[in-house]
Amino acid sequence: MNAKLLGHRYGKSLVRVLKVLRDGPTHTIKELTVAVSLEGDFESSYTSGDNSKVVATDTMKNTVNALAKEHLGLENERFAMLLARHFTSKYPQVQRATVEATERVWERMQIAGKAHPHSFSQAQQARPFTRVSVDAVGANIESGIKDLLVLKSTGSGFEGFPRCEFTTLSETQERIFATSLTATWTYLADPPDYVASNAAILSAMLRLFAENYSPSVQTTLFEMGGAALVACAEISRIQLAMPNKHCLRIDLAPFGIENHNELFVPTDEPHGLIEATIGRG
Amino acid sequence: MNAKLLGHRYGKSLVRVLKVLRDGPTHTIKELTVAVSLEGDFESSYTSGDNSKVVATDTMKNTVNALAKEHLGLENERFAMLLARHFTSKYPQVQRATVEATERVWERMQIAGKAHPHSFSQAQQARPFTRVSVDAVGANIESGIKDLLVLKSTGSGFEGFPRCEFTTLSETQERIFATSLTATWTYLADPPDYVASNAAILSAMLRLFAENYSPSVQTTLFEMGGAALVACAEISRIQLAMPNKHCLRIDLAPFGIENHNELFVPTDEPHGLIEATIGRG
Amino acid sequence: MNAKLLGHRYGKSLVRVLKVLRDGPTHTIKELTVAVSLEGDFESSYTSGDNSKVVATDTMKNTVNALAKEHLGLENERFAMLLARHFTSKYPQVQRATVEATERVWERMQIAGKAHPHSFSQAQQARPFTRVSVDAVGANIESGIKDLLVLKSTGSGFEGFPRCEFTTLSETQERIFATSLTATWTYLADPPDYVASNAAILSAMLRLFAENYSPSVQTTLFEMGGAALVACAEISRIQLAMPNKHCLRIDLAPFGIENHNELFVPTDEPHGLIEATIGRG
Amino acid sequence: MNAKLLGHRYGKSLVRVLKVLRDGPTHTIKELTVAVSLEGDFESSYTSGDNSKVVATDTMKNTVNALAKEHLGLENERFAMLLARHFTSKYPQVQRATVEATERVWERMQIAGKAHPHSFSQAQQARPFTRVSVDAVGANIESGIKDLLVLKSTGSGFEGFPRCEFTTLSETQERIFATSLTATWTYLADPPDYVASNAAILSAMLRLFAENYSPSVQTTLFEMGGAALVACAEISRIQLAMPNKHCLRIDLAPFGIENHNELFVPTDEPHGLIEATIGRG
Repeated sequence: MNAKLLGHRYGKSLVRVLKVLRDGPTHTIKELTVAVSLEGDFESSYTSGDNSKVVATDTMKNTVNALAKEHLGLENERFAMLLARHFTSKYPQVQRATVEATERVWERMQIAGKAHPHSFSQAQQARPFTRVSVDAVGANIESGIKDLLVLKSTGSGFEGFPRCEFTTLSETQERIFATSLTATWTYLADPPDYVASNAAILSAMLRLFAENYSPSVQTTLFEMGGAALVACAEISRIQLAMPNKHCLRIDLAPFGIENHNELFVPTDEPHGLIEATIGRG
Repeated sequence: MNAKLLGHRYGKSLVRVLKVLRDGPTHTIKELTVAVSLEGDFESSYTSGDNSKVVATDTMKNTVNALAKEHLGLENERFAMLLARHFTSKYPQVQRATVEATERVWERMQIAGKAHPHSFSQAQQARPFTRVSVDAVGANIESGIKDLLVLKSTGSGFEGFPRCEFTTLSETQERIFATSLTATWTYLADPPDYVASNAAILSAMLRLFAENYSPSVQTTLFEMGGAALVACAEISRIQLAMPNKHCLRIDLAPFGIENHNELFVPTDEPHGLIEATIGRG
Repeated sequence: MNAKLLGHRYGKSLVRVLKVLRDGPTHTIKELTVAVSLEGDFESSYTSGDNSKVVATDTMKNTVNALAKEHLGLENERFAMLLARHFTSKYPQVQRATVEATERVWERMQIAGKAHPHSFSQAQQARPFTRVSVDAVGANIESGIKDLLVLKSTGSGFEGFPRCEFTTLSETQERIFATSLTATWTYLADPPDYVASNAAILSAMLRLFAENYSPSVQTTLFEMGGAALVACAEISRIQLAMPNKHCLRIDLAPFGIENHNELFVPTDEPHGLIEATIGRG
Repeated sequence: MNAKLLGHRYGKSLVRVLKVLRDGPTHTIKELTVAVSLEGDFESSYTSGDNSKVVATDTMKNTVNALAKEHLGLENERFAMLLARHFTSKYPQVQRATVEATERVWERMQIAGKAHPHSFSQAQQARPFTRVSVDAVGANIESGIKDLLVLKSTGSGFEGFPRCEFTTLSETQERIFATSLTATWTYLADPPDYVASNAAILSAMLRLFAENYSPSVQTTLFEMGGAALVACAEISRIQLAMPNKHCLRIDLAPFGIENHNELFVPTDEPHGLIEATIGRG
């Protein structure tokens, strides 16, 4: 039999670095988990045991470290871009390099009402990330956030959906809307400051989530995407995934207790999942 | 600003079912975690708060349950196909339905040397899965396995790779090769028995892994893919992902102890990751 | 052979409730995961298949729900106490009831600079908890926090430790100190407000962590425990567990780069673990 | 305020080693995750910043490695004992050393019907472990297994339990019994072969689980503990924890389908939890 290689890529994942950025006695912590992935002229490593073009994944890890020491600053996108360009420019066999950097955010502690210069807590479980892909044509820059848990305790309903023999769900104008938001937006141009742009996008989406009545996850998702596009001129599109973390009203009638949408059981399984990409009209 | 919907899909994830298949007093356990995802004419639910076409994700869950009771048997692929076809045939607004079913395997216990009729252990952590997508054109059937941990303690090396200023890795003809295999193969035609075909594919790949010297993860991956294609005539291609779960030789020289490839530290971070798709030549 | 029951307890774990506390249009979210455990006269259920005294764990779940609807407020300790007392007072066979409630904290969103009345984010990954045990003698009330990640980027060292043939660690006056703090404190008396007392204890510990030079995890742990005891007169003791989440300086010398404590690799495995209980002298 | 140290211990956790045991070309893999914990005369490290008695946790890790290279064999208990004794005999300040070793089991692959000499799969998710504690008085040796998932699809019921206003559970003589068994047994004397004894204990418990009708988790737990004590004369007691992994019958009546205990939803939350210790009568 003849086997044929239809596609391939390889790299190093879970390369962790933590850098202390110093401005005199005031430190800032930047912790990233980096993944590097290369595509290109590597077919012979699969088909004939020839490693002569295979940049070792251990070398990739060393490269992340060396370049992080020299160049990692506040904007993850600029570091990811520099790293991706290193691989495409240094090795002719590399046709595309993709770098994904996911941040664990360390916030400065407030001690006795003042910002402390070198103490931090990793309060936030949501993870900002960027993914930069570079090839001969140019670069693709995406940024986003993973797993941001948000909830609104009113201002959400779901009505007017079709019913069939397998439908048991009641219509409602009053439910809890909880989701673990993951959003990815695409930059067409460098903004003046990626940190500020990312924050503006997130803030615009959360305002929409909080303030608008939600007739469905779909509608809220679309409105949030639209708000993100308004908030930042440099992005061309945004992809949103919103799992519906159902909070089910607990039936207390067997115990003679009325439950006026006060007590719920939060569930992880099963969950709805709504995904869409929104661009400029 | 005008926002435009560029793409969208929605569904229900993590729908768990466990079915007892009975053959007289002999039971078999089939436990699946199912995800349903629909694409189609749902734009109005995003842009105008119109839910009149939105099959509720709760209805999807009920449908999984009802059809599992009636139709789930030993072959996950046939159940996923039936479920996907239910959605495309019943609702005109559905243009594509995708069903993914991941199995937790319950093996029959051996008690006093005999197979017990109704007692089981969930020994295996690897998860077989199938993903079936149905649209107006036809069906796409993929099956595979996730996270199968395998290791060979000799018969693996890595030599002849390029060196640059960031390269510190030594060449070796003797290393541990450990990986957590994820493989996805595509069926072009129904085999007589999906369970038997999936087992034959897996068995052929493991034989290759065990018996052939590995000059690189890439080469072994390609050979395993080729073996899978030989083992089952009904599949057209296979996609393999092999993270390199590095086992690093521990340096005991500071304690005056030689370590002849006997003692290693298994690590999860960072890890190499090799991915390729192999088709028929 | 005669088997004898030496000890036993049983209960229900992972009972999740989410309650919307309403003050007009302003909501507050309280989400708890509750575990109930009972000890008492249940021996016959083990030794003779007699369930006549076994409060079903499903009944425990229902009881958590019913009492949460009626009584759950801002202070977890008061709810856990009420729940534990319910079991000891209602069922004569129960000699001790233990209730543990772990909170997922939902923080109110700031939208356009103002606190939003019904939108929240679950930003914090650390989990406050309380554990209340009630028996004929009285009650034991513990509160605490699990997995609070904190880091100081200077002001920490480790010197003067003994060296043997297996010692390779260098002495240092400058290292990163990162830990995932878990603390449990014991209340001897009801404070006016558990929420305020818990916050004061945590705040006092973090101030110590930030401000004092750390010659060892042990010393800092002891000082933090002492600060907690000063901060709250109603607690008698505090137990602290501080895994040392090592951030290892990356050696960049092979690449001709000096690393003056700027770049580190954060590691999860292995980690030091320091645990102690501190009381009043 | 005077703070007082009431108790303390410290050590190193998650020290991972993988050893290749060679018998000519036939290899065996032993992978352990080791935790070392020391108690003793360490008070000054907490109260006066004096590290002169503090065996560095990095030294503990090195010691695990060096002694694993020299002494780790098939029986985890003998290695844990040797390691614990090393710490109590070498350092006078150590009054008690506790070593816990948890195994990830690598099973030999069967290739073309034959056992392969150097290829393995980590099929089993349950984890065998041992915990050895040594002090001036002697040694305490516990062994066991964590998280062994087992299920019986018939032969289990729950009847005759008390009912109160919060009871909604129905009585049944036919339910699924699924649990994730964790068991810890205490050796009073060295058996000829720990591997064989551990296997015999486990096998005896599973036979009981499979063959006896279960009127309650409690009864089955007690019978399994009794069977373990019969199976191995060297153990004095066994502690069992059996979370009840509820499989709930799905109500399909709304869809006109009868569900005769065929289809269930497996749930993780909430779950019952039964724990007991059984000794010789």
